[in-house]
Amino acid sequence: INFTYIPGDGIGPEVGDAAMTVLEAMTAKFGHSLEAEFHLVGGAAIDAKGEPLPAETFDSCKRTGAILLGAVGGPKWDHLKGADRPELGSLLPLRKNLNLYANIRPCKPFPALIDKAPLKRERLEGTDFVVMRELTGGIYFGDKGRDESGAFDVCRYSESEVRRIAVKAFDLAMTRKKKVTSVDKSNVLETSRLWREVVIEVAKDYPEVEVEHLLVDAMTMHMLTYAQDYDVILTENMFGDILTDEASVLCGSMGVIPSASVSDGKTGMYEPIHGSAPDIAGQGKANPLAMILSAAWMLRLSFGLDKEAAAIECAVEAALEARQTTGDLGGKLNTSDVGDWIARNV
Amino acid sequence: INFTYIPGDGIGPEVGDAAMTVLEAMTAKFGHSLEAEFHLVGGAAIDAKGEPLPAETFDSCKRTGAILLGAVGGPKWDHLKGADRPELGSLLPLRKNLNLYANIRPCKPFPALIDKAPLKRERLEGTDFVVMRELTGGIYFGDKGRDESGAFDVCRYSESEVRRIAVKAFDLAMTRKKKVTSVDKSNVLETSRLWREVVIEVAKDYPEVEVEHLLVDAMTMHMLTYAQDYDVILTENMFGDILTDEASVLCGSMGVIPSASVSDGKTGMYEPIHGSAPDIAGQGKANPLAMILSAAWMLRLSFGLDKEAAAIECAVEAALEARQTTGDLGGKLNTSDVGDWIARNV
Ligand SMILES: CC(C)[C@H](C(=O)O)[C@@H](O)C(=O)O
Ligand SMILES: CC(C)[C@H](C(=O)O)[C@@H](O)C(=O)O
Repeated sequence: INFTYIPGDGIGPEVGDAAMTVLEAMTAKFGHSLEAEFHLVGGAAIDAKGEPLPAETFDSCKRTGAILLGAVGGPKWDHLKGADRPELGSLLPLRKNLNLYANIRPCKPFPALIDKAPLKRERLEGTDFVVMRELTGGIYFGDKGRDESGAFDVCRYSESEVRRIAVKAFDLAMTRKKKVTSVDKSNVLETSRLWREVVIEVAKDYPEVEVEHLLVDAMTMHMLTYAQDYDVILTENMFGDILTDEASVLCGSMGVIPSASVSDGKTGMYEPIHGSAPDIAGQGKANPLAMILSAAWMLRLSFGLDKEAAAIECAVEAALEARQTTGDLGGKLNTSDVGDWIARNV
Repeated sequence: INFTYIPGDGIGPEVGDAAMTVLEAMTAKFGHSLEAEFHLVGGAAIDAKGEPLPAETFDSCKRTGAILLGAVGGPKWDHLKGADRPELGSLLPLRKNLNLYANIRPCKPFPALIDKAPLKRERLEGTDFVVMRELTGGIYFGDKGRDESGAFDVCRYSESEVRRIAVKAFDLAMTRKKKVTSVDKSNVLETSRLWREVVIEVAKDYPEVEVEHLLVDAMTMHMLTYAQDYDVILTENMFGDILTDEASVLCGSMGVIPSASVSDGKTGMYEPIHGSAPDIAGQGKANPLAMILSAAWMLRLSFGLDKEAAAIECAVEAALEARQTTGDLGGKLNTSDVGDWIARNV
């Protein structure tokens, strides 16, 4: 298991340490060997090397094809602009240059956390969907700038960009509940009309999968009212940014949600969805569960280690049930204690 | 009170009739005279005149400057494309040509409906914000099309477009809780950076108003977790489309939410946020409350009739408390009975 380990900024190093403890316990138990290549991105890289994504970091990512990332950014670098900023200067180029065109985030609330969500329990029980977000196209990566008349951003999608993410979504649905909900704004946007056309075409190759098309405005409502009805929600970059964050609320805490940004084959970057939380960094208060779950996803998706991933996920669930957690989830442990507890229970 | 009355498609005519009954009761009670110019848009206009926005409809809207609209669209016209479609061919040109650049939607759950929302009661009680959405700019109205490389949509904003809606938002906040939350995606989009710059500038003229800037992804979460904290949420067209629909879930029913699309001065178009609901059209089941509340907003914003608007709003609230409602809200009345009940209680 050779991967690139990028703890990053803020609480990244703390939650990263906890995840490494768990990974080491896993390798000991299952007899694997572990080689983590430690690298810098974001603010930490700006401070040490003068740039948010140093060449050696990128080279390692490219070589290993498996990246475990903590968190990026913080107020210290808030004065920087555009591509000099930690997030923009590292996350977006990593996504683009490693061709990580599919971002996957689960929404399956843990029973132990369901009452922490602002939604009623009966609206959440049984919810189990993933959002598959296109991650390297759309308005994030189109031309942007200023001219006499103001500011502009161009949203673009090619047929092939839509097709490959749609195929991934349908493939994933085949391993799950066999339903794809494609989200667009095809009553207004041309890119959305292309999106819908291509999804309809791709769907023909998956006769067993139920397909439904929803407008993004309707999806924001249905996600809250009919969460249990969804399986794979497929959408473009910006809508995905919005909908994945909305979905995180259903889980009761951002602190337990991993995400995978994957390419073709086994290349992938795995990171918690929470940020660098600079206000609590260095205090041992940070909840490492999302980072530990991200490590499990890396084992599954980049290394095909399903059993090992499941062992970690079970231990996380056990920690939640036993309240062996940090304060944000009602427990009394510090960050590394949580890592140790889970490592012992893998 | 001279206005343009456009019942539209689906349940539009039924809920429109109920609203007219209420308006007539109001005029009788307060000694006003009422002149409604009846016109067609959308599917009804396509069927009768061959186009979704006939010239005489537009002329009337322009002349009266006050439009009460029911609903537009339905499956009968689903085969039409682009600007031939009922919604696109009527709503977008009306917004643009009447310069209705500010869309305002309230989010203040009625006590009688709070338990119908998927969110827990304690998360909703006391919520009282409005979303101010820019309605005539951004990606809806930019260049769009196809070329060799795929499809594209251009999002554009000029400084003056941002400024006038920001001024409206701050003016509104001054009459309310004196807080503006401006929503953008300024960490990625150039239009959002312009948006934020201009809002910061406009804010200087309103030293009493607290300003906060949130990224759209964060806003989708905070709206569910901290709904009570907001007053005026200010945002661009597409984000507003998404956020207003998300906010509607907090109210427990789409059937009680009016919206106002206004220009400078007293020009405005008032409509329920629900659609034409073709599945229940013509059965007397449609809930007319959002349409009746839209009529009240017209009285207040286009005619300055605050007392009259408040009288209607009180009667609606009374109907909710007394369960004098349609089945969707737990009552037993049909559409026109609800209108009659409210007319009697104005
Ligand atoms: C940091 C930012 C550019 C990023 C995005 O919008 O993609 C973040 O919100 C995310 O969802 O990973
Ligand atoms: C019908 C559609 C074009 C419209 C929009 O997106 O503006 C609708 O969703 C709305 O919010 O009024």
